[in-house]
Amino acid sequence: MEIELKELNADLQFLSQSLPDPSHHALLRKIQLRVEDIAKLAAATPVRRSKVEDMSAEVVDSNPYSRLMALQRMGIVENYERIRDFSVAIVGIGGVGSVAAEMLTRCGIGRLLLYDYDKVELANMNRLFFRPDQVGLTKTDAAVQTLSDINPDVVLESYTLNITTVTGFETFMSSLKKKSFRPNKEGSGVDLVLSCVDNYEARMAVNQACNELNQTWMESGVSEDAVSGHIQLLIPGESACFACAPPLVVASGVDERTLKREGVCAASLPTTMGVVAGLLVQNTLKLLLGFGQVSPYLGYNSLKDFFPTMQMKPNPQCSNVACLKRQEEYMLAKPARDAAAKAKMEAEVLSTEEVPLHNDNEWNISVVDDVELDGPDTRSPDVLPEGLTRELPSADEFHKATLDSPEADNDDLEDLRRQLEAINSA
Amino acid sequence: MEIELKELNADLQFLSQSLPDPSHHALLRKIQLRVEDIAKLAAATPVRRSKVEDMSAEVVDSNPYSRLMALQRMGIVENYERIRDFSVAIVGIGGVGSVAAEMLTRCGIGRLLLYDYDKVELANMNRLFFRPDQVGLTKTDAAVQTLSDINPDVVLESYTLNITTVTGFETFMSSLKKKSFRPNKEGSGVDLVLSCVDNYEARMAVNQACNELNQTWMESGVSEDAVSGHIQLLIPGESACFACAPPLVVASGVDERTLKREGVCAASLPTTMGVVAGLLVQNTLKLLLGFGQVSPYLGYNSLKDFFPTMQMKPNPQCSNVACLKRQEEYMLAKPARDAAAKAKMEAEVLSTEEVPLHNDNEWNISVVDDVELDGPDTRSPDVLPEGLTRELPSADEFHKATLDSPEADNDDLEDLRRQLEAINSA
Repeated sequence: MEIELKELNADLQFLSQSLPDPSHHALLRKIQLRVEDIAKLAAATPVRRSKVEDMSAEVVDSNPYSRLMALQRMGIVENYERIRDFSVAIVGIGGVGSVAAEMLTRCGIGRLLLYDYDKVELANMNRLFFRPDQVGLTKTDAAVQTLSDINPDVVLESYTLNITTVTGFETFMSSLKKKSFRPNKEGSGVDLVLSCVDNYEARMAVNQACNELNQTWMESGVSEDAVSGHIQLLIPGESACFACAPPLVVASGVDERTLKREGVCAASLPTTMGVVAGLLVQNTLKLLLGFGQVSPYLGYNSLKDFFPTMQMKPNPQCSNVACLKRQEEYMLAKPARDAAAKAKMEAEVLSTEEVPLHNDNEWNISVVDDVELDGPDTRSPDVLPEGLTRELPSADEFHKATLDSPEADNDDLEDLRRQLEAINSA
Repeated sequence: MEIELKELNADLQFLSQSLPDPSHHALLRKIQLRVEDIAKLAAATPVRRSKVEDMSAEVVDSNPYSRLMALQRMGIVENYERIRDFSVAIVGIGGVGSVAAEMLTRCGIGRLLLYDYDKVELANMNRLFFRPDQVGLTKTDAAVQTLSDINPDVVLESYTLNITTVTGFETFMSSLKKKSFRPNKEGSGVDLVLSCVDNYEARMAVNQACNELNQTWMESGVSEDAVSGHIQLLIPGESACFACAPPLVVASGVDERTLKREGVCAASLPTTMGVVAGLLVQNTLKLLLGFGQVSPYLGYNSLKDFFPTMQMKPNPQCSNVACLKRQEEYMLAKPARDAAAKAKMEAEVLSTEEVPLHNDNEWNISVVDDVELDGPDTRSPDVLPEGLTRELPSADEFHKATLDSPEADNDDLEDLRRQLEAINSA
């Protein structure tokens, strides 16, 4: 409408110059002012919120981050605002990727990199995110439109390309390496890559890029019959890469290339895709912000509401050369890693001992143990009142013995992994 | 802008009449035509898809239902189009309810009834669905705006009211009873009620209404620390009602009324809410369209990706009078229900025997067993070649014996429930 209004103005200007009678000029000036008002109305975009400088925890209706910053007060996350430092790349902006992008945008992620080459169609409307008025736009353009309206604080970068082509893969690699958002960041320019693609070829391209860049990533997938899905964490060298083991269930008896062929299409549901996107981003938040346990693999069988978990070690005979290189590095770094883990664990034991039971004791309540009240210094658990001995070693002595024993030195991480498996299989 | 354009037209008309020189009239006419074009542009609403008469399974990009109708070809759902017959009421259009409404809308549900009294605020933007430009609208109005754009085929009814007030509860009850959408429907006017509210009082109101109307409903909830949630199926008389047992975990040590108090707010995440909404609507689809197993209760602990299940029978000492009435009716109807279940099971056994192994044998392949090739009529499993006897009874004979035995008559449903529990606990 901008062009039409400009042309109208030009005509009015021309008319004004050709009118001899000054009495007409006043009326024409009024008309010109009206057109100016209409131009202003036409230019007015829908209400958008302005960017915010810092994430506030203030509880007011106008604060878009109050319910997220409350995660700190609830004791779930130590420093929520760190989320603004992170960059996440999402490959495939379809039923899972678009919802994952919206969730991360609403969580206030620092920067999102979006990759897709497809266009929005009415046939996509059975999944969340895209709207019928976006039909014909590229998925990346439509996503940037919607996401920037939702949260202007997020830095959005969109790449309309196919990562399985040679030039597409090159652009993909260089975009992941770019560090302009956080120049001092170690490793690549992104903190996590989320694969939300719908075919084996694209997954292998993401796998190749992440193995080469030593980049942690998460895989996601939904079955062709729309009723099951999974997410998987892949840390190059540490866990199985996508080439280490064949995919569990992705396509069943159907050649992938037929999926988009005329007359043949896979089923999909907004529910399954929404659940998989939710599980994927929840594990992303746990990994980035350091809370809870990140699942190495989590399946979703919606017919039985069954959620299998498992863990896969890398395959020493993996066909991917970059994976083998990462495996070698991981093995070489094992002694240093174990020493660091042990030091961290000991530091945590010490700091736990020093922390008072109740950090905020606003009523100044002091609890007095009436059994030990009259003895000597009972604040140290190692000192007992005269005449008493221990039947069993105290918890601290037991803990110290365990930490010092040669068995414990052996493989702390292996032990932790076994514990994780035991919890998962329970 | 409509008014401004009208005023502009009036001024141009007045100018046209006061201009003496005919040479100016041609220019003015051109200006008037331009304004007409601008008015047309301003009146043009964004592209919306038109309603469709029938759900088509045709695989073309312009078909919004192709990926849903594919559920039939994949063998998941027998008749997907039945979804257009169903009415679902959603109470609470917040973080879970709004996403549930969007999922059902994209699935092409027949009719949605939406209940909420709250307005959209920027503080809601950390969850899916609402947009910043909707701030200030009621959640029901904003939802109708978004949902009708997404899928004009869905009949939307919105009720901006608080169901915990006397008049609000009365309107809620009468709206559930209304049968104008499907006059021949048995029971109430809706097929399912989804409770997506955030407080105990509102849950008790839904519970009261559903017990009185003998209406199956599903409960959902998310914890105040944003990292866990649950869904629960409630069938009056058959399973525990909300008053039969106190809620497992809803609020922890915080009075509900403080939740919305200045300075205090619960945490929330789009991930947890999205997962709970997805699990809720997935179980809704399973219940309405008859596929998979509907979970009686499903929890989501996002810190450990743990999904507990359980089943609760009604409490014979429940404080809710309507619940006790439904329990009595359920017990009285037990013999008829068992007989119907048995008849259905027997009919299914018979029909399974009649169905050929491969329904569509487009290549006309016939499998020939070379062992039995030369014997007499081996197509019937009961007829063996001369000289052969069975060591064990055939599968059909065994099945028939089991069905005829008095033990099997005892309680088929109890047996099915035990099987379900065994699967869930596995």
